[in-house]
Amino acid sequence: MDSYWDELSYDKALRKEAALPRGFRVGTTTLEFTPAERPTREPYRMDLGCILLDEPTPAFAGVFTRNAVTGAPVRIGRRRLSEPVVRGILVNNKISNVCAEHGEHDAEELLARFFEAGGIPPEQVFPVSTGIIGWALPVPEMAAATPRLVEGLHREDAVDLARAIMTTDGFPKARSALCGEGRILAVAKGAGMIEPNMATMLVFILTDVAVSREVLRRVLPTVCDETFNRITIDGDQSTSDMALAISSGQVEAPSEEEVADELRGVCALLAEDIVRNGEGTSHVIECTVDEARTTAEAVGIGKAVVNSPLVKTAIYGNDPNVGRIVMAIGDYAGQAGIPLDTAHLTIEVGEVPVFVGGAFRLDREKEIRLSSYLQTTAMNPRLHGYPQHDRKVSLRIRCGLGSAHAAVLGSDLSHEYVHENADYRS
Amino acid sequence: MDSYWDELSYDKALRKEAALPRGFRVGTTTLEFTPAERPTREPYRMDLGCILLDEPTPAFAGVFTRNAVTGAPVRIGRRRLSEPVVRGILVNNKISNVCAEHGEHDAEELLARFFEAGGIPPEQVFPVSTGIIGWALPVPEMAAATPRLVEGLHREDAVDLARAIMTTDGFPKARSALCGEGRILAVAKGAGMIEPNMATMLVFILTDVAVSREVLRRVLPTVCDETFNRITIDGDQSTSDMALAISSGQVEAPSEEEVADELRGVCALLAEDIVRNGEGTSHVIECTVDEARTTAEAVGIGKAVVNSPLVKTAIYGNDPNVGRIVMAIGDYAGQAGIPLDTAHLTIEVGEVPVFVGGAFRLDREKEIRLSSYLQTTAMNPRLHGYPQHDRKVSLRIRCGLGSAHAAVLGSDLSHEYVHENADYRS
Repeated sequence: MDSYWDELSYDKALRKEAALPRGFRVGTTTLEFTPAERPTREPYRMDLGCILLDEPTPAFAGVFTRNAVTGAPVRIGRRRLSEPVVRGILVNNKISNVCAEHGEHDAEELLARFFEAGGIPPEQVFPVSTGIIGWALPVPEMAAATPRLVEGLHREDAVDLARAIMTTDGFPKARSALCGEGRILAVAKGAGMIEPNMATMLVFILTDVAVSREVLRRVLPTVCDETFNRITIDGDQSTSDMALAISSGQVEAPSEEEVADELRGVCALLAEDIVRNGEGTSHVIECTVDEARTTAEAVGIGKAVVNSPLVKTAIYGNDPNVGRIVMAIGDYAGQAGIPLDTAHLTIEVGEVPVFVGGAFRLDREKEIRLSSYLQTTAMNPRLHGYPQHDRKVSLRIRCGLGSAHAAVLGSDLSHEYVHENADYRS
Repeated sequence: MDSYWDELSYDKALRKEAALPRGFRVGTTTLEFTPAERPTREPYRMDLGCILLDEPTPAFAGVFTRNAVTGAPVRIGRRRLSEPVVRGILVNNKISNVCAEHGEHDAEELLARFFEAGGIPPEQVFPVSTGIIGWALPVPEMAAATPRLVEGLHREDAVDLARAIMTTDGFPKARSALCGEGRILAVAKGAGMIEPNMATMLVFILTDVAVSREVLRRVLPTVCDETFNRITIDGDQSTSDMALAISSGQVEAPSEEEVADELRGVCALLAEDIVRNGEGTSHVIECTVDEARTTAEAVGIGKAVVNSPLVKTAIYGNDPNVGRIVMAIGDYAGQAGIPLDTAHLTIEVGEVPVFVGGAFRLDREKEIRLSSYLQTTAMNPRLHGYPQHDRKVSLRIRCGLGSAHAAVLGSDLSHEYVHENADYRS
């Protein structure tokens, strides 16, 4: 997937990408409700989605937010990990069911109502919610919609599901890869409240490859750490985030290494999609940090740069204000006790050296060249529905301290980000 | 200082506030230059300011940025601390002299040229610069302006100095207090790149009270920690920040406690001024954290809340999206290993309880009331030149974990912040 001319051409490519692995059905529906907490009485629209396996499976894994405050779905999901088998996922957007009164009871109640007709024990289903924190789920309206959801289950592709889990996302996101004789498909939502540890991000990874419960639980956390935990949109981490991986076990699995590699590839692309469709994102920024003492410090330096509001706003403005990059590196290093020596620090923007041997290397021509470079990597944050291109702003930092390396992805900070978030709920 | 109708009424009050203590003169001038690094060849305007004591004094102290990358003035300033006496400060805006080639040499050269006529040893003067990181000082133009600066030295008030150190500041800032038979005056610049540890902040504290070198060096770091290190605008910490305190020693000092109290009062008001005139600030947010285990954790939780882009944008939009406050608290607690139990967490917005006993307490009437409250605390970020009022958004968090307490001040995140920072240098 590279560039698209419009929503339609993206949708076409996405349908191919999002074909369901064997042994899964998905379905979606919509409903209207009026939140009791909303100042005005206008109704809200909610999407409801479902992933259902043909047979219960013991091969599933989950990684959850590290936020100390968690939503009911995260608490229930953590308990589900000790179930012998699971059968599917029920997901809604608009309301995240976090610290609402009776939140866990509401979620369990919905599962019971939804699955009782199909004879599926509720404890075999993950409930997942994303959206506004603090308000309660509209249980009666959601329960009334579940028959439609069941009727609509199909085996085509997961594009409708990828759409149903969107909140402020710019476009639906799905990535897949062949894996041995089978496939790995991952769909995700996430556009803001994105930093480490899952942020407001939901990832559902479905595969027909018969990877075992043990392998899945070994591989998933590492892959998440190397992909979803190296992206940031605003540094905020939500109370609801999770990545769930489920195998229907229908075809033989290749080696654990091969599964891990394919999964990492799928998740890395999906992680970049999340940043690219971030709230108000007009530039995707890739900050590569080399010659750090440890991977953690490399990640920390990279995150400090791409999280700095001043770096982010400068890039939004196509202004190569590279002094702010040095400020952000030094700020982090000073706080983390990293013995940075600027004499050995090198910074390149789009492969152009801007800081070498303790001093900035800037002149009029270079400033003009860098500004053009930033312009060529820009996207129009008002154009929603599809990724406009796959270009990134490349920042490369060599610390001169060791041999550890990491790359992190982030987004700039635009008027559109402020606009979306100053009035998200209205 | 409360509310002002216009720039003129503020200026009048400020002149009273900023009267110089005995033993000091100040002066300012302006100059034009064309940065060699600037894409266009239009000239920039720079302000140059000077503070000069009538006599050298051993009673001076300094607190500097903890950024691992520091500007030439910070490196020179740290060395100056071991001088037996100092005589004054030479300060410019527009270019911060950070990691420019020959930056320290440039700063020392300027001091030598400026003070040679007056017979003042350059090592008795602090050079201070603020502005763009990465470009070089226009030494010839600055040197040519110094005679005008000397001619203009006066004893009236420090309003011209407070104006000369402004970069993106909304209004000039000065606060003072009586202290025994003398006075403490502090002027500051700072509007962005403001978080802990001095941010892009310069503070000059002048007093005629004969407080000793030892007392000043004991009191200043503590006071800075309790005032300037508890404010944040964008979480970014600059490479140039410092607070310098100098006593002319002309009147007898009261007790160390009294000096510390008065200094703390002056700095607390000045810290709030800095937030109130922050880049694009439309709400000042005061987050009070009670019942934490330690002061550091209380500060950490408060900073996490007021630094969250999602909390900041919601407040900008007068949207009481209190779920984001809980998200930010939980995010920090999860990362810092604080054993938060939501059952004992209480959150109030403008004294209205919104989270009690593990759940949100929200309804339509309360949401409307909270939105009105946010509107009454708003300022127009496009109205520069004077503080519009002294109202703050009050967030109060009780953690239920201990008895430590802290209050931090922050600002919201507005379109005007993005606008200012996407195009700062042009």
